[in-house]
Amino acid sequence: MSIEIFPIHGIPEIAPGDDLAAIILRGLAASDLSLIDRDVVVVTHKVVSKAEGRIEAAVDDAEYRRLAEREARAILRRRGDLIIAQTEHGFICANAGVDRSNVPDGHAVLLPIDSDRSAHGIRVKLERATGATVAVVVTDTFGRPWRRGLVDVAIGVSGLPAILDLRGSPDAHNRTMDVTEIAVVDEIAAAADLVMGKADAIPAAVVRGIDLIGDGRATDLIRPPEEDMFR
Amino acid sequence: MSIEIFPIHGIPEIAPGDDLAAIILRGLAASDLSLIDRDVVVVTHKVVSKAEGRIEAAVDDAEYRRLAEREARAILRRRGDLIIAQTEHGFICANAGVDRSNVPDGHAVLLPIDSDRSAHGIRVKLERATGATVAVVVTDTFGRPWRRGLVDVAIGVSGLPAILDLRGSPDAHNRTMDVTEIAVVDEIAAAADLVMGKADAIPAAVVRGIDLIGDGRATDLIRPPEEDMFR
Repeated sequence: MSIEIFPIHGIPEIAPGDDLAAIILRGLAASDLSLIDRDVVVVTHKVVSKAEGRIEAAVDDAEYRRLAEREARAILRRRGDLIIAQTEHGFICANAGVDRSNVPDGHAVLLPIDSDRSAHGIRVKLERATGATVAVVVTDTFGRPWRRGLVDVAIGVSGLPAILDLRGSPDAHNRTMDVTEIAVVDEIAAAADLVMGKADAIPAAVVRGIDLIGDGRATDLIRPPEEDMFR
Repeated sequence: MSIEIFPIHGIPEIAPGDDLAAIILRGLAASDLSLIDRDVVVVTHKVVSKAEGRIEAAVDDAEYRRLAEREARAILRRRGDLIIAQTEHGFICANAGVDRSNVPDGHAVLLPIDSDRSAHGIRVKLERATGATVAVVVTDTFGRPWRRGLVDVAIGVSGLPAILDLRGSPDAHNRTMDVTEIAVVDEIAAAADLVMGKADAIPAAVVRGIDLIGDGRATDLIRPPEEDMFR
């Protein structure tokens, strides 16, 4: 089984109220792509947030900082203008997900209020329009402790398990693996970013060949505080 | 530009002294794959470590724990039998990378001593045998603070940049992006894991369509302690 990842071209600048699923469908057509069963449509939250109107004025650094603090449920660390914060969803990331890149001047984009629900809404519309059974992953670009560079991760999921639980499966030596929960939707998010590119304005991709169906949520990925050694 | 990811089948259990590049080439042939320019061959460190003899007896939990502590340069956290430790390379991960899954009973596998050099050695042999200019990424499976589930990351690289530095590039609004260093080899590692699977004994994959050439090292990914807020 191999996997293919296709960029979805032709998605224009998104404005509040736009029907993102319809726009993705037009992008698929412009990219000569037809959705088939088990395709995973990966879309960066930035266009989801814009379509949902989650964009606010932030004319200067101070306003931007206030927005980030407002979106934070808890602040783990501060350094200069950067905060590492927990969002209302429970994700921990820089500036509570408030971001000014790829956003019209003087504005900042926030995370969708319920990014799992956003993924679900897009999925329902894509399925109705195409007849295919697909999954949708909404992504953001997160930094990590200890490792330089950003990677895309899932902040919204519909139609897939978030985590593949291999605990109790035998390994190749027929021994039971103790701890093997794979964050498969984060791996899908990272894979899709390989064709999206930050500067290229390609905010969506199709990942084909993932042989999974499930009803996970991105919030399944949040490590409970009592299990977390780095808060 | 799309990306394809192919599993490399037919790689047997690896023993110390095995010529891993030769075994990968046989696996490629068995999988009906021929390497072409810019292919990225991704291989889990477990087979690299076994080929390099980085496997030791660990008959019980106490011996396993001693091995992990011996491989650690520094210990960040302890919880029960688990340590979160920095390895000699500088990577921070569970049990300093010492692992007992997919390893013969009574043994544990350590990380390669210099996993960037391991990647380079495999790459040189693959290039000599095929005439193609390829890259090699050696991976391990790491947990993350704050997010449940494991993802594959790069611990060895040859022939690629580790990080794609987009700082200073214009975004889609023609504004300069402040902080956009993408950990592209970690995204490649995560993508390849989608076809590898922990239980399936598929320890290598080809990622095709990555349009990058560079001379990065996985140690480029290590965040300097003075920039790190979570040690």
